[in-house]
Amino acid sequence: MRLAELSARSGVSTATIKYYLREGLLPPGRRVTATQSEYDGDHLRRLRLVRALIQVGGVPVASAREVLAALADEDLDRNERLGRAVWSLPHGPAPDEDDPATEVGRRTADALLEQLGWGHGPASGEPVAPAYGMLVTAIATLSRLGYPCSTEDLEPYGRAMEQLARTDLDLVERYGTPEEQVAAAVALTVLYEPVLLSLRRLAEAEESRRRFGGK
Amino acid sequence: MRLAELSARSGVSTATIKYYLREGLLPPGRRVTATQSEYDGDHLRRLRLVRALIQVGGVPVASAREVLAALADEDLDRNERLGRAVWSLPHGPAPDEDDPATEVGRRTADALLEQLGWGHGPASGEPVAPAYGMLVTAIATLSRLGYPCSTEDLEPYGRAMEQLARTDLDLVERYGTPEEQVAAAVALTVLYEPVLLSLRRLAEAEESRRRFGGK
Repeated sequence: MRLAELSARSGVSTATIKYYLREGLLPPGRRVTATQSEYDGDHLRRLRLVRALIQVGGVPVASAREVLAALADEDLDRNERLGRAVWSLPHGPAPDEDDPATEVGRRTADALLEQLGWGHGPASGEPVAPAYGMLVTAIATLSRLGYPCSTEDLEPYGRAMEQLARTDLDLVERYGTPEEQVAAAVALTVLYEPVLLSLRRLAEAEESRRRFGGK
Repeated sequence: MRLAELSARSGVSTATIKYYLREGLLPPGRRVTATQSEYDGDHLRRLRLVRALIQVGGVPVASAREVLAALADEDLDRNERLGRAVWSLPHGPAPDEDDPATEVGRRTADALLEQLGWGHGPASGEPVAPAYGMLVTAIATLSRLGYPCSTEDLEPYGRAMEQLARTDLDLVERYGTPEEQVAAAVALTVLYEPVLLSLRRLAEAEESRRRFGGK
């Protein structure tokens, strides 16, 4: 397909596609004339992923390039590629080591991961995922502001996410090849975040009405 | 307590506290001398909430003022106050009515809410929560980019959030007065979002290792 069709089928403007081509986020098409190139289904899939990362995930162009490099790294297995790609996503502010609440956040996060039986904490001896730092920061903030954040308070949230991760990976396994699966995993991680957060707010409103409505 | 102690106990700098006082996000203290005021536990609690909204929730000052007004509105019952306060939080981009995918998003969201048995859709005849628009936008994006987003795909996410909303409201009901409960509900809505998202990424990594590790 030509650039115009790629644009129509992806919903991404031709100007934006040209920008992604210049930035190396999209591989060049097959040149057919001096001014025209031919694009295929791989371009369309790649374009959708880039769009998801940048527009919904708020991923900077440089990080998007890292995500794509991880996806294409044939030295890594599927699990490693997925891990590396998700690590390249933004994870918010790193823990503030000058804040005493960070120590509380770290101890609570470690106890929580231990209780959940997940192997990601610093105790695992493996490189620590940036999502661990994000969790520590979030717990530190709750602690500093005096809101509930004990291991017991947090465990139900971990269990719920454990269950949803199976749903997430079931969606991913619908894709045929390991390459498509890893790309879908990163896209769905990002694109389902606003789904989750909006459903949580609606569910809270529903539960609030049930408990407090008309009182 | 004096300003310095309020700052120490809240972890918020005196300059920031003075800014919140000027912006009306914090009620003035009781004046004790020409240059000193006395603050109490209500100030501390309010300050923590404002901090949660602005720093973690990314809530603009004007919206924070609306949240606080909703919390203090004695004409509303607890359920209405909570609803109004959460409505004042940012909800991301509104659905793009020029995008045909928005229609898919809306139809899917309505079918999903119906299936979940929640009363928030436009069909309820009640004002539509901004979280509904956030959900429509999220589904429209999934649809436009060609990722899975049928009602059946989304239902497990709704069920998981339904279950977590009960946990959320259990935390809220630990607070003694309706005023404190509503304030805690808004703070916890915002502060638990990064907890959820980081735990989801860690849970996905765990599940990916289980399914794809070493292959």
